[in-house]
Amino acid sequence: MFCAELKSDTLKGIVNIISTLIDEVKFTITPEGMTLKAVDAAHVAMIEMDVGKGAFESFTATDSEIGLDLDKVKGVLKLASSGDVIRMEQDESHGRLVFKVGNITRRMNLVDTSSMSDPKVPQLSLTANISVSVDELQKGIRAADTISDHITLKAGADYFELSCEGDTDSVSLRLGKDVLPALDTDSEVCSMFPLDYFSNIVKAVPSGTMVNIELDNDYPVKLLFGLADGNAKVNYLLAPRIESE
Amino acid sequence: MFCAELKSDTLKGIVNIISTLIDEVKFTITPEGMTLKAVDAAHVAMIEMDVGKGAFESFTATDSEIGLDLDKVKGVLKLASSGDVIRMEQDESHGRLVFKVGNITRRMNLVDTSSMSDPKVPQLSLTANISVSVDELQKGIRAADTISDHITLKAGADYFELSCEGDTDSVSLRLGKDVLPALDTDSEVCSMFPLDYFSNIVKAVPSGTMVNIELDNDYPVKLLFGLADGNAKVNYLLAPRIESE
Amino acid sequence: MFCAELKSDTLKGIVNIISTLIDEVKFTITPEGMTLKAVDAAHVAMIEMDVGKGAFESFTATDSEIGLDLDKVKGVLKLASSGDVIRMEQDESHGRLVFKVGNITRRMNLVDTSSMSDPKVPQLSLTANISVSVDELQKGIRAADTISDHITLKAGADYFELSCEGDTDSVSLRLGKDVLPALDTDSEVCSMFPLDYFSNIVKAVPSGTMVNIELDNDYPVKLLFGLADGNAKVNYLLAPRIESE
Repeated sequence: MFCAELKSDTLKGIVNIISTLIDEVKFTITPEGMTLKAVDAAHVAMIEMDVGKGAFESFTATDSEIGLDLDKVKGVLKLASSGDVIRMEQDESHGRLVFKVGNITRRMNLVDTSSMSDPKVPQLSLTANISVSVDELQKGIRAADTISDHITLKAGADYFELSCEGDTDSVSLRLGKDVLPALDTDSEVCSMFPLDYFSNIVKAVPSGTMVNIELDNDYPVKLLFGLADGNAKVNYLLAPRIESE
Repeated sequence: MFCAELKSDTLKGIVNIISTLIDEVKFTITPEGMTLKAVDAAHVAMIEMDVGKGAFESFTATDSEIGLDLDKVKGVLKLASSGDVIRMEQDESHGRLVFKVGNITRRMNLVDTSSMSDPKVPQLSLTANISVSVDELQKGIRAADTISDHITLKAGADYFELSCEGDTDSVSLRLGKDVLPALDTDSEVCSMFPLDYFSNIVKAVPSGTMVNIELDNDYPVKLLFGLADGNAKVNYLLAPRIESE
Repeated sequence: MFCAELKSDTLKGIVNIISTLIDEVKFTITPEGMTLKAVDAAHVAMIEMDVGKGAFESFTATDSEIGLDLDKVKGVLKLASSGDVIRMEQDESHGRLVFKVGNITRRMNLVDTSSMSDPKVPQLSLTANISVSVDELQKGIRAADTISDHITLKAGADYFELSCEGDTDSVSLRLGKDVLPALDTDSEVCSMFPLDYFSNIVKAVPSGTMVNIELDNDYPVKLLFGLADGNAKVNYLLAPRIESE
């Protein structure tokens, strides 16, 4: 059993993040909220999301799993205005989820989750810890566009830098301690990542969100941030592109 | 002879409605205004429009016919700002209509109307009568998108419903008497229509317009509404799609 | 040596004008500013631009030449907001120009200018002299769209007219002395021009700019206007399309 109401903006925020990686998703439902673990088809990035009860206007559920086609959920979101409340109710007899937005009722077939297994999220302990507004990251991504397919993240004692090195041209965005709420590293660390993945996730995070970045040398980067006033927590892990490959 | 001035918004409203069905149109001009009857190439929908003198800022005409290419008229509308007055004057010696918008003069060849006959508009007496804001219809159309190629309209004693049934998913917009200025039917009636036609006409009606819908079982639907503060009257008729076909 | 700072809007205005003709450009730098002479590949139009020191927030340079790829400069402009100051500094050892926008550093390879020769700008003495707001010209261009590939400019004692003559349709924008700050001609003059070239340059001139037009019979037209509060001067020359060809 699953019946919940949430603001359309909250649902939109959740869907935008997940759909950077996958189109069909399995949510694990408990009486305390929804969780999700997903990896993209190429196994380059991984997402772990925990949407607590508090992110919802109302939430009543027993343990269950729900498989959703995110493109269809995006269609439902287009029917709602900002601030509208969306109601979701499981219709177990028909294997459907019923969405209600105002006087619109949208019945959606659930996706079969039997073949969708949860990926194992590696436990990483990374050297550098940076707190940065996603707006700065979005600025860095705009600058990187057309220079290269990769972006390098680098952190030192007093800076965090995003840079791109092309054959003839280069660009870098260097952020000092004055614009970084937190910056903590024992040594200078640096890893390179596929620009498209990094760009997609950074663009999907709502403007104004603070992102915690954990970084090391030629290691995955971890992006941690909250949605829905912190009631939803996201852990995004992106594999590095090792230069010597 | 035909010489008239009207607000660009009025002309735009008229052109938007007609161009959902046809590209070239014959207007019948009398000293009292312009009328039009048109059917689309596939004979699925029909439009009857009566633009009275009152819709114009000035209007002087003798009985005549004018054939227009609506794409060209749309080009003229792009030259006018909202609130601008557009002047149209027939140049009979050259078979042209001369548009004036501010200090722009646009001379347009008339379309030959000799082969354009008026369709016969069937007189229908339909069971249900519903008054509804076009904004509600537009909401229903947005919801129907991607579910199916058809939309079902249904009216009962206390509701009017737009719905779409796909293979696995469905959507419906149910409007109660609280949002319907008028709802009058002896029995529950229901017909299905091609979504593209219904969608095109509903999108072309200006936001805020009240539409009168006449509906029956497996019969055409009639949409009646006004433009230009009620000085132009539109009667739109759409053939049903009978399921057993 | 070249090091300068200027408002992003100023750089944008300059780039928009030049890129109507060419993609790669050679600027001649002196201690007093930058100049440019360029002709398009088809030798139909020519541009002469003089950007004085006063157009910059700061400007320090010795005599030199700088070759730039305008598409890349447009990329830099996308990183700046209106009002932002962009810093450009020549890195002579690497043959690069370094742009700084806020905390972004963009290093750009310079284009080789050795094969780029300055075109000779013909000295013309043209009969008619018209001062007109570019907004009026932009209105005329919107009207000309879809009628013909050519636009005719005509000036008489008390009017300036832009017109287009198609096979069946025509359009004209006639401006009287009331909307023309200056209009001076000994006789009626008229020349026809390729609409695409005329349209591109007119659209690139910022709204509100006053353009001085010099016109004659079947002769090139000269468009003179200022950018950056008059600190940059542009002379644009467009070859006529002679009807008898």
